[in-house]
Amino acid sequence: MVRLGREKQPPEVAIGLDIGGTKIHAGVIDRDGTILHMVGYPTKTTDMPLIEHIKQIAGEALDWQRNAMAEAKVIGIGIGTAGQVEWPSGIIRYASELLPNYTGTPLKEIITSAFGLPVIVDNDVNVMAITEARLGAGRNVQHMVGLTLGTGVGGVVVANGAILRGKWGGAGEIGHMPVDFKGIPCICGGIGCLEQYASGTSIAARYHERMAAFGETADSPPDTREVVRRWLAGDTAAIEVMDDAFRALGAAIAGLMHLYNPELIVIGGGLADIGEPLLSCIRKEAYARAMPSFAEGVPIVRAASGNGSGMIGAALQLWEYR
Amino acid sequence: MVRLGREKQPPEVAIGLDIGGTKIHAGVIDRDGTILHMVGYPTKTTDMPLIEHIKQIAGEALDWQRNAMAEAKVIGIGIGTAGQVEWPSGIIRYASELLPNYTGTPLKEIITSAFGLPVIVDNDVNVMAITEARLGAGRNVQHMVGLTLGTGVGGVVVANGAILRGKWGGAGEIGHMPVDFKGIPCICGGIGCLEQYASGTSIAARYHERMAAFGETADSPPDTREVVRRWLAGDTAAIEVMDDAFRALGAAIAGLMHLYNPELIVIGGGLADIGEPLLSCIRKEAYARAMPSFAEGVPIVRAASGNGSGMIGAALQLWEYR
Repeated sequence: MVRLGREKQPPEVAIGLDIGGTKIHAGVIDRDGTILHMVGYPTKTTDMPLIEHIKQIAGEALDWQRNAMAEAKVIGIGIGTAGQVEWPSGIIRYASELLPNYTGTPLKEIITSAFGLPVIVDNDVNVMAITEARLGAGRNVQHMVGLTLGTGVGGVVVANGAILRGKWGGAGEIGHMPVDFKGIPCICGGIGCLEQYASGTSIAARYHERMAAFGETADSPPDTREVVRRWLAGDTAAIEVMDDAFRALGAAIAGLMHLYNPELIVIGGGLADIGEPLLSCIRKEAYARAMPSFAEGVPIVRAASGNGSGMIGAALQLWEYR
Repeated sequence: MVRLGREKQPPEVAIGLDIGGTKIHAGVIDRDGTILHMVGYPTKTTDMPLIEHIKQIAGEALDWQRNAMAEAKVIGIGIGTAGQVEWPSGIIRYASELLPNYTGTPLKEIITSAFGLPVIVDNDVNVMAITEARLGAGRNVQHMVGLTLGTGVGGVVVANGAILRGKWGGAGEIGHMPVDFKGIPCICGGIGCLEQYASGTSIAARYHERMAAFGETADSPPDTREVVRRWLAGDTAAIEVMDDAFRALGAAIAGLMHLYNPELIVIGGGLADIGEPLLSCIRKEAYARAMPSFAEGVPIVRAASGNGSGMIGAALQLWEYR
């Protein structure tokens, strides 16, 4: 075959779908990670099953592309979802009651047959590692550990430039790394998991326990945001709760350095929005607890932030795994 | 080139060198992992530097081969050594005072120039994973976690069929995974590392502390072997110490399941010689603390045992990384 010059290719886009416990976002994303269009809905619906709701939201993003950007080629649908995802089958191995009837859903298969496009499904934290590797601190990094500190604690591990998956795709479940083997029972059935000390939910819960122990009451108990505000303002109880969170996180991160020997630690999730006051406390505890041979030259940095990071990573999977 | 039948090849052997804190073993090993000859010496020498001692022991194994098995071809020297090893350079990144002046030794380079043979150096726990994969429960397993419970606690992780190494080869340092972030200070500088609860040394130390707390004295405090004997005989203090070790180990193994999503957990080291009474207690705690989606169908088994497992794995590296 003789090629006479380069043919003009249509611009490529992918649909990115971020399915969280609270919200579902869908976007039309180009290969640079630019959001060309996005829509968002609460996860909870009363008028249809969750899977129909997901299909409808994905369809809405595709409709926008067809109307507003018909010259582009949609190369597929990338999904980052809450819950445990079997890789590469894209079956939901386990999801909490925030996503009703979601456990066991063959998500990849359902979305593939609904739209007739290539579909890649991973968990919501793993896809953030792709955003990080493409647009954040993870560029040119072969070995990385990422933690998301939000409602829960999520994790992702990159080893030799690829997401570490293990037997069925569950590797990197950092929130359920025990840091206190005689500690607080965890909703997962374990004891003393990191999530019980360092998630937003737990920080608020630990603060409420302390208030109750001192006989304090409040009409509406302070949420995580308020506990953090009090911590920054010097409230003693808030300082104690946050110090515990930092010690638990520091222990976990030191352990992760010893277990994965990464080049970089990235902290994301809602709590990371606190920025330097949070990061400097985490760094202090982690570096003090890690062996110098593992900790030296390993930065602990904030994740590429901003809304849509999960949705972007979800879409970028289409190019990543091409 | 035309080949008229298969030429007869000389049998291949490799020298395996196991450098521990107490003893150094060298052997002549064939590709099936059979020990054809072995020698052993205490690590400690008074009459020469450690590195000269190592060379002498390797030389002795090579002399045996030259005299007793001259028809064989020595394809190289494989070393499994205590301490932290940079991979693949074979430089000792860190070693404790059990191996004096060992930190910083370019071991691979020194042994290569001394003998003019290919040399592969890894840490003593990583090479055991090769023995396990070739001769033990790790056959046909792509994702495995190994723990050695001995003087210390060692670890190795196999992911996608290869030893997980990370940035410089340090990954899998399971003994320094914190399981109690407000717990016992560790010799590594960390706090509450698994090794402080589940190593032979720590089990004896915790038992001595308990004796002291109850005002008991002994001319020679019981060693790990004796604490284990008392545990099996129903001694209350020994049961308490061992139960703590099992809880810590169970927490760590549950965490390792969540972090690496392995197909198999293998337990080796001196304590594994206790066999089923030990393994059943570890299994009980680990399975109770792990999420079912991660623990189901993941056996916790004893490592391919017997002396020489490290030395065999050290030698097998030559065929493994060919």
